[in-house]
Amino acid sequence: MTKLDLNFEPAEQLDLKDLNEHVLKAEYAIRGAIPTRAEQIQDQINLDPESVPFDKITTANIGNPQQLQQKPLTFSRQVVSILQYPELLKHKEILVQSRAYNSDSLDRASILLDKIGGSVGAYSSSQGVQGIRQTVANYITKRDDGEPASPNDIFMTDGATRAVTYLLSLLCRGPQNGVLIPIPQYPLYTASLTLYDTVAIPYYLDEKSGWSTDANEIESEIKKSIENNVKPSVIVVINPGNPTGSILKPEVMEDIVVLAAKYGLVILADEVYQENVFSEERKFYSFKKILRDLQKRHTKLFDNVQLASIHSTSKGVFGECGQRGGYLELIGFKKSVREEILKLASLSICAVITGQAMVDLMVNPPSEGQPSYEMDKNERLHIHNTLKQRGELLYQTFQQLEGIECQKPQGAMYLFPRLYFSQKVINAAKDADLQPDEFYCHALLESTGICVVPGTGFGQEEGTWHLRTTFLAPGTEWIQKWKSFHQEFYKKYAD
Amino acid sequence: MTKLDLNFEPAEQLDLKDLNEHVLKAEYAIRGAIPTRAEQIQDQINLDPESVPFDKITTANIGNPQQLQQKPLTFSRQVVSILQYPELLKHKEILVQSRAYNSDSLDRASILLDKIGGSVGAYSSSQGVQGIRQTVANYITKRDDGEPASPNDIFMTDGATRAVTYLLSLLCRGPQNGVLIPIPQYPLYTASLTLYDTVAIPYYLDEKSGWSTDANEIESEIKKSIENNVKPSVIVVINPGNPTGSILKPEVMEDIVVLAAKYGLVILADEVYQENVFSEERKFYSFKKILRDLQKRHTKLFDNVQLASIHSTSKGVFGECGQRGGYLELIGFKKSVREEILKLASLSICAVITGQAMVDLMVNPPSEGQPSYEMDKNERLHIHNTLKQRGELLYQTFQQLEGIECQKPQGAMYLFPRLYFSQKVINAAKDADLQPDEFYCHALLESTGICVVPGTGFGQEEGTWHLRTTFLAPGTEWIQKWKSFHQEFYKKYAD
Repeated sequence: MTKLDLNFEPAEQLDLKDLNEHVLKAEYAIRGAIPTRAEQIQDQINLDPESVPFDKITTANIGNPQQLQQKPLTFSRQVVSILQYPELLKHKEILVQSRAYNSDSLDRASILLDKIGGSVGAYSSSQGVQGIRQTVANYITKRDDGEPASPNDIFMTDGATRAVTYLLSLLCRGPQNGVLIPIPQYPLYTASLTLYDTVAIPYYLDEKSGWSTDANEIESEIKKSIENNVKPSVIVVINPGNPTGSILKPEVMEDIVVLAAKYGLVILADEVYQENVFSEERKFYSFKKILRDLQKRHTKLFDNVQLASIHSTSKGVFGECGQRGGYLELIGFKKSVREEILKLASLSICAVITGQAMVDLMVNPPSEGQPSYEMDKNERLHIHNTLKQRGELLYQTFQQLEGIECQKPQGAMYLFPRLYFSQKVINAAKDADLQPDEFYCHALLESTGICVVPGTGFGQEEGTWHLRTTFLAPGTEWIQKWKSFHQEFYKKYAD
Repeated sequence: MTKLDLNFEPAEQLDLKDLNEHVLKAEYAIRGAIPTRAEQIQDQINLDPESVPFDKITTANIGNPQQLQQKPLTFSRQVVSILQYPELLKHKEILVQSRAYNSDSLDRASILLDKIGGSVGAYSSSQGVQGIRQTVANYITKRDDGEPASPNDIFMTDGATRAVTYLLSLLCRGPQNGVLIPIPQYPLYTASLTLYDTVAIPYYLDEKSGWSTDANEIESEIKKSIENNVKPSVIVVINPGNPTGSILKPEVMEDIVVLAAKYGLVILADEVYQENVFSEERKFYSFKKILRDLQKRHTKLFDNVQLASIHSTSKGVFGECGQRGGYLELIGFKKSVREEILKLASLSICAVITGQAMVDLMVNPPSEGQPSYEMDKNERLHIHNTLKQRGELLYQTFQQLEGIECQKPQGAMYLFPRLYFSQKVINAAKDADLQPDEFYCHALLESTGICVVPGTGFGQEEGTWHLRTTFLAPGTEWIQKWKSFHQEFYKKYAD
């Protein structure tokens, strides 16, 4: 029994006022009010299916392909299952005979197990498994037409989010310091800047030019910020774009590198959608490739440019969100700065090992001639084409509707159409204490079960309204339901 | 080509002065100077095995069981391999016949797949898979002799580290705010407090009483802190202890709960070693059990106590560090506060799904009568006993040596012996710009390849010196080498 005096007045429970104010201020719309309401409705459906006018929630609010029946790639899952249970290697003959496994999956698993050091249950070095970082470096070198990459520059991370966290927590230094972010943006960026008490300096993407950037506009934001004693230190670029689905042209990317060189901005290149390219006219160029080309053409001018590029297993045709695989490539940073990033990584000890293995498998598929080659190629192609068709269909549907205007899908897995609302909608939204786009998205959810995120959550030019939808949900029925809802909504609220 | 003017002076590269000062200040000894040197030596061994006087590095600096040949539990790995490749379920007959799998692994995998929603590649809800949180709640209820636990209070996390990060980033409010931490402590805590710019208020563990705590001493630290205008808001308790390996007595834990009730401190109970109990005299009690008992005995006095308990798949007999499984149980927090923790979790979207599944398997092993029951029980027992024997042997060895004093191993996977150094050692260390315990650990590494962490990295009473070693390394040869090194070191530096 305690020897202390029990004659005391108990202290109060913690309240919001007792918490870190920056955490309280941070907002994250992807899992905000509308998705939360969608979860409630799903619970309601489970209890009483008759109580709502649809039979399921269509989660178009988040890029979560395998939740929406996208199949994982067979080869990579075969390999990782063996990493989890290496005893399977002893049963090679029977597994291959019974067609449970392809023989090259077993071979590849042996190689990966060696790289990892024998068990996915052991911590790796904080930077990640050396052999896997080598595979990533090989991939980047090939992707960038031979521009060399080094495993020493690769840091394995739990998804791309963790990479963003490491970088921003190191580079954000408080309210005298700013980070340039595109508007609209993926809200992880604004939320992180709020957490780190650092100024978000918005630069607007131009909807009419397919959500491109304008270097002169960015430069004037930089100058304005410096005049206000806020030093910009990072520029975030999401390419292909989230939520916009656009792909930047190389000349626009060059402009950004010039600004980075001139003002000493770290380029944080969020390139997680690098494989999601659906446009015939646009190709994905990495920022690294653009930077290296500029460095070759202009001696010394671009030598100090610092670039951090992130990638993940969650998107592309892989869609392995729940595996939390990702990496960060650092280019042009001083050794002392890189060591600080490594220190941050070492505080979490290491990224999940199977996620690291997934990265290896994502960037190094079976080669021609191997037993799994055709299967893997076909699976990748099928997913790619299905996504492309679905994006196209959704786009075409929006084209037919009044009050909605949408850029042609180029990449990523999103459309970000603009909505034009009548005064009646604006008034009704005001009465409901909502923004008009929030009002529309709530109504869409309650009528059809389709869950999307209002433009408000990503930022948008004042007086414009948007929403972000993924084009991952299977089938076309939900698109038809959306169409009917939209027509009725616009009829109901016609001025 | 860029349309911008290229007539500019390139900006400088970032330097340490341009980074967040709190990140720069944070220190993390577990992967600090000595482990870094050990990695260099390992590289050297790989290149030229003759260049050092031993054939390998013995990594006793970090609790990483499977790096040191501890085998994963077969049942859990069978199940998770199927989660990665559910096609295996179609081959049930042949897998069971060929003894590649036990039938209950396949059954359990089906159940878990259902809980998860069909694919480990999809994000789960940010709080974690509902069905897995239910399994965890059942485990806690059983562990605490029927004290009910609810899945709503469980948050699945990437290892225990992430849980600590969520809690401290929410509860740390800057330099007017403090967190009580034990000294010695696991350096994640001091590093996190430095990152969040919050005051670490040390309370010293008493080595002579087996590293126990003294409530009166803690209370005087609290009062001193309040006088200095630093409000303590959290008390961290690591039980079983890291680095000390001690287990707290229930009466000592009651004292801590009383202080929490009186001063409104959140108890952050780091209980990741709850299964690593090796002493016959000590039993592990959870803080929750102690709290609930106090609440029953004293109406209202303890109603406001807030407790966060963390656990992980990395330790215990599981040792699945690389899988990054863990959970957090929140008790007594207001709903509004819990929602802020959920928001932080939602910024990382979700914990890795296979890690969540590993937690389920850790806390819910096969039951009696199931095909895997005996195997699983024996594997768990074998690992437990091996660890216990090795801890005992290391302890006995230290007992025989001069200048070293060690508490009997009770729990966790560490010993934290005290070292007494001659003036000669102290002088030699000073010449090398090292603390004496660092000097000893460096010498141990260079002579034997054994990598341990000096007490300096964990904190220790002024004028005392320690080191932390795991007792995970297999075999006894390394212990013999350590013994010889120690004897020579003390002979060489005798005053």
